[in-house]
Amino acid sequence: MKINGVNLGNWLVLEKWMNPTIFEGTEAEDEYYLAHDLEKTAYKERMRIHRAEYITERDFMQMASWNINTVRIPIPYFIFGDREPFIGCINELDNAFGWAEKYGIKILIDLHTVPFSQNGLDNGGLSGVCKWSTMPDEVDFVLSVLERLADRYGHRTGLFGIEVINEPMTTRVWELLNIQERYPARDAEMAAGSQPMSLEFLFDFYDRAYDVIKPKLADDKYIVYHDGFEILEFEKFIARRQYDNIILDTHQYLMVGEAFGIEQSVEGYRGYIEDTLLPKIKKAKANVPVVTGEWSLFNSLAAGGDTNGGQNVLQTGQTEVKELSKEKAKEIYQALSEIQMNAWNQLDGHFYWNYKTLIDTANEQGWYGWDCWDLGRAISQDWFPTELLKK
Amino acid sequence: MKINGVNLGNWLVLEKWMNPTIFEGTEAEDEYYLAHDLEKTAYKERMRIHRAEYITERDFMQMASWNINTVRIPIPYFIFGDREPFIGCINELDNAFGWAEKYGIKILIDLHTVPFSQNGLDNGGLSGVCKWSTMPDEVDFVLSVLERLADRYGHRTGLFGIEVINEPMTTRVWELLNIQERYPARDAEMAAGSQPMSLEFLFDFYDRAYDVIKPKLADDKYIVYHDGFEILEFEKFIARRQYDNIILDTHQYLMVGEAFGIEQSVEGYRGYIEDTLLPKIKKAKANVPVVTGEWSLFNSLAAGGDTNGGQNVLQTGQTEVKELSKEKAKEIYQALSEIQMNAWNQLDGHFYWNYKTLIDTANEQGWYGWDCWDLGRAISQDWFPTELLKK
Repeated sequence: MKINGVNLGNWLVLEKWMNPTIFEGTEAEDEYYLAHDLEKTAYKERMRIHRAEYITERDFMQMASWNINTVRIPIPYFIFGDREPFIGCINELDNAFGWAEKYGIKILIDLHTVPFSQNGLDNGGLSGVCKWSTMPDEVDFVLSVLERLADRYGHRTGLFGIEVINEPMTTRVWELLNIQERYPARDAEMAAGSQPMSLEFLFDFYDRAYDVIKPKLADDKYIVYHDGFEILEFEKFIARRQYDNIILDTHQYLMVGEAFGIEQSVEGYRGYIEDTLLPKIKKAKANVPVVTGEWSLFNSLAAGGDTNGGQNVLQTGQTEVKELSKEKAKEIYQALSEIQMNAWNQLDGHFYWNYKTLIDTANEQGWYGWDCWDLGRAISQDWFPTELLKK
Repeated sequence: MKINGVNLGNWLVLEKWMNPTIFEGTEAEDEYYLAHDLEKTAYKERMRIHRAEYITERDFMQMASWNINTVRIPIPYFIFGDREPFIGCINELDNAFGWAEKYGIKILIDLHTVPFSQNGLDNGGLSGVCKWSTMPDEVDFVLSVLERLADRYGHRTGLFGIEVINEPMTTRVWELLNIQERYPARDAEMAAGSQPMSLEFLFDFYDRAYDVIKPKLADDKYIVYHDGFEILEFEKFIARRQYDNIILDTHQYLMVGEAFGIEQSVEGYRGYIEDTLLPKIKKAKANVPVVTGEWSLFNSLAAGGDTNGGQNVLQTGQTEVKELSKEKAKEIYQALSEIQMNAWNQLDGHFYWNYKTLIDTANEQGWYGWDCWDLGRAISQDWFPTELLKK
C-alpha cells in the first residue's frame, strides 16, 4: 500500500470559501445555516446541481491520468437523508464507486461532519459549535451512520476504507486556534457548552466504531483514525488491544507551522517539515501505518503576505497583497511540492487538500495565492509536477 | 493566426444529453421548455449553480496548459436578460473574459441560439422549430444583441471575434437530416411555418451583421460566419463587396459522413476527411480563412455500433452496444485525432466540440463511446495526444 491521494472536499460537504455561489443571498457561513436560511426549493435545487456537476466521471478519469490511486471523500452525517432539513447524498457516493471502480481508484470514505459538530470549524458544518461528544444519542447516531456505510460498501472493490471522524477537536488545538473566536457561532445558545473532547472519549469512540465497522468490512479494507491533532498520543490507543488494518491519519499544513511562528520562507517551511514534523510522524509510524490525509501547498510566502494561519478574505476582509512574479511563485510551489512529497513518501501515503475549488482569482479581489489549494490548478500551472505522483 | 481551440458548449447554452440533471423532473428536451416547465425558483437556482460551477477559472488554467489559445463560447440570444422567462448570463461572459485574459486565451463569442430558432436542433434551444428567418422583428432583435456584444467586448484584449449565428439551416441539410422528425417539436402550432432559410436571406443577414458590428470592433478582431452547411457557396457572399477580417466557420463531424454512407472504419473516415472534405474546404480557403469551428472524435466504429448519424440513447432508447477493448478504442481515437488534426492544421484553425460533458458512462446505460465528445476525457484517456496541440 502506498497512497497517492487527493481529497474531494466541497463536493458532498460544502465549504463556503471554495464555493461562494451556493451560499449567495444568505448569511450562512456553513452548511447548517445554508440549509436553514434558504427557502426549501432553492436549497434542494442548488444542492442537486452542485452535487451533479462539481465531481463527475470526468474527474476520476483525470485523477487516474495523474496517477492518483485513492480519493478521500468527505461526507456529511446526513448522507442517508434521515436528518431534515438536510438532503442525503448516498446516490452520489454510489456513483463515485462506479467511477472509482471503472478507473482503478479506491475510495476512503471520510465522515467529515457529525450533529452539533466535533470541531467547531466551518468545514465541520456548524461554525463555533462543538458539542457532539457531550451528546450520547448523537454519538450513537454517528455509529449507526458508520454501520450503514460499512454495510453498503464494505465489500465493494472500490472501497479503500472508512475514516470514522474527521478532525475531532482536542484540548490543546482548541485553545491554540481559538476556535470560537475564529469561527464565531451564530446562535450563542446552541454553542453554549461547546468544548473540545478528551482523548479518552475519542479513543472510546474509536473502539466502538471499530467494533461496529470491522465485522462488515472485507479483509483488505482499512479503518482510518484521525490523530485528533495529538499524533504522539495515538500509541495509547494502539496499546489498548489488537487492531487489524488500521491507519493513522494526520493533517499537516504549513499554515499551522506559521501559527507556531516558523519563518515564512522556503527554508523555514523545509525546517518545519523535515526537522519538526517528520521525526514526530515517523515516531508514530513505528506503531501504525500513517498517512497525511490532508496537506497542501498553501503558504503565506506565496500568498504575498501573512495569512495569520490561513485566514481568507471572507474572514479578514483584506484584499490587498503583494503579488509575486509568476516565476517566483512557481519556484516556491515547486520547492514545497518536492519537500513535502519527499516527506510524505516516507510514510504510507498522502491526500492533497483539495482536488478542486471554485474560487475566482481573476475577477474577485483577495484570493491571490489561494488557488494552490486546488490540485488541478496546481498541476495546470506546473506548481505541482505530476512526476511526483509517479514515485 | 492559427487557432488551437475548443468549444465551451453546454455552459451558457444547454444541451440535455450533456447535462441530464438540470433537466431532471421535466419533459423538456431543450432550453426553451426547461425555462417554461420548471417552477421559477427551481429554474433560477438550477441555472445559477450550473453557470457558476460548470466552467470556472480552473478550466481556463487547464486549457492553457494544453496549449489551447482560443475558446469558442456558445451564448444564447437572451444573454442580456431581456427575454423573459429566460435568465441572462452576461456576467458569466464577463467573468470568462477575466479568466481568458489572465491565462492568455482569446474568446470567440458564438451566438448559438435566436428566437424561434435558426435550425430546429435541440442545441438551437427549441427543437423542431425553425422560423426565425421569417420574422423580421426577431432578425432585428438578433442584430441588436450582436451590437451590444460588440459594444461591450469589441476592444477587449480577450476578444478574438464574434460569430454572428451558429448553424443557420439551409435547404439541403434541412431535408437530408430530416430535422423535424429527428427533433420533434412539442408545440405543433409554434412549429407551423418552420422552414430552412435561403442563402440569399443568410447572406443579407451576414451583410447587415457586418455593418452593425464592424465599426465597434478593434482592428484585430474577427467576424466569423458559419457556412450554413454550403461551404462552396460562400464565395458568392465574398463577391458582394469588400470585407475585412472575416473568417469562414465549417463544422465537420464524422457522423455526417456516416449519414452519407461512408464505411465505418478508420480508413473510411480517413478517406472522408482527406479525399472528400479537405479538397472542398481548401477550395473555400482560397478565398477566405477557414476554421473548423466544431469537430470531434465521435464515430460509430468506436461507439460499438451504428449511431445513425449520431443519435444518442435519449433519442433511440438503445442501450446495448458491443464494447471494444480499451486498447482498440484508444487506437481508433488516436488515429482519428491524427488524421483530423492533420487536416485542420492545413486550415486556419480548429475548435474541438466539446470541452466537457457531464455524462456518466459508468453508472448509466447507453453512453458507451459518447465520452469522446469531451476533450478533457479524451486527453485523460490519451485518445487525443496533447502534442497535437503543439504543432
